Amino acid sequence: MSLHAFYEQYFPFWKALKEEDKNYLCENTAEEHFDKEQPVHDNMGCTGLFIVRSGRLRLYMLSEDGKEITLYRLSPGDICMLSASCVLQSVTFDVYVDAEEESNCYHIRASAFSDISNRYLEVKNYALETAVSRFSDVMWIMQQIVFMSMDKRLAIFLLEETQTNGTDSVNMTHETIARHLGTAREVITRMLKHLAADGVIEVTRKGIRITDKKKLRSIAY
Amino acid sequence: MSLHAFYEQYFPFWKALKEEDKNYLCENTAEEHFDKEQPVHDNMGCTGLFIVRSGRLRLYMLSEDGKEITLYRLSPGDICMLSASCVLQSVTFDVYVDAEEESNCYHIRASAFSDISNRYLEVKNYALETAVSRFSDVMWIMQQIVFMSMDKRLAIFLLEETQTNGTDSVNMTHETIARHLGTAREVITRMLKHLAADGVIEVTRKGIRITDKKKLRSIAY
Repeated sequence: MSLHAFYEQYFPFWKALKEEDKNYLCENTAEEHFDKEQPVHDNMGCTGLFIVRSGRLRLYMLSEDGKEITLYRLSPGDICMLSASCVLQSVTFDVYVDAEEESNCYHIRASAFSDISNRYLEVKNYALETAVSRFSDVMWIMQQIVFMSMDKRLAIFLLEETQTNGTDSVNMTHETIARHLGTAREVITRMLKHLAADGVIEVTRKGIRITDKKKLRSIAY
Repeated sequence: MSLHAFYEQYFPFWKALKEEDKNYLCENTAEEHFDKEQPVHDNMGCTGLFIVRSGRLRLYMLSEDGKEITLYRLSPGDICMLSASCVLQSVTFDVYVDAEEESNCYHIRASAFSDISNRYLEVKNYALETAVSRFSDVMWIMQQIVFMSMDKRLAIFLLEETQTNGTDSVNMTHETIARHLGTAREVITRMLKHLAADGVIEVTRKGIRITDKKKLRSIAY
């Protein structure tokens, strides 16, 4: 499919654009490949928009001493808007984006999108609407952090991971899980040990296999 | 000042509205008074928009077991948009709003504003832009919760409070401060005792007085 045809399907505002502006956006789009764990965006400047074509991106916050917390993930078809802070002037916080898996993206140059969004209310609207919808994801994470115990958060994380990957397993190291949840590896290792002793999970060499989903759900919700 | 005249100054989209729609919004605005600590909005339905005229509103999250966390405050001139979730369909989380002080507000009925925002892109834009700008406030709170120790958060809270009220004092009970920060009263009492012993604050009968702002800043930032 040509980029024009893809954008026509993808962007709700496409029809409102003049032909020259459609071309302008297409000319300012690059296909980019990211290796697993390669950085896509850091807090330096306005990188632009990314539409995930394959793979998965992860958006997270980073503290001065290197602590991370995962805010949400972007799957094929999702768009990363917060990496274009110059489009959303009211967003004043820093986020980081990495490729969680090998990924292919369309990358729209920030200046071009910003220019178009200043000239079309429909485009501005789309950018804001996309950002606001992510607000809800972030609030859900925040509610977990503030109000839930770590064992509950771990249970939710395992359930959401298996739902995303469509298996019963989460093939991550304890270190990686700890990073997602903003805690120490030791905490995760201890909790997984408890869950294994209760027969809820099995710790394998590749990661974790859920053996009693019902029980894990009762911990999570 | 008439409501028409006020809205003309207040809303950047006002000029774009037809005369009949201006009247429609004015007719659907009520002046409302809230006593100190009176609820303004809970998670039931779509209450509408509130423009603070005097006093102060507080927006917070609430856990099932009654734990709170303050997200931000609204001062005279500020607008509360998240209490109108039917205007922002992509916002799917629950927030609560209380009057932190005796307050007067203009209350715009949700259905009327929603109707107008569906018909004017400029109005939709304004609503989204307002919501997104609050996103940054919430992320700042979140960064504090995730990455900062409670003594740092307490120092930031005391500094921001005195900046807001323009004095050197924070006249709140330990209980109230604890609620703002989502922790237990005992934790706050213990930390304030430490700060007092270090000569940073003075605990008075009415609350807390900051005696060494420079030192408090060095703890906070």
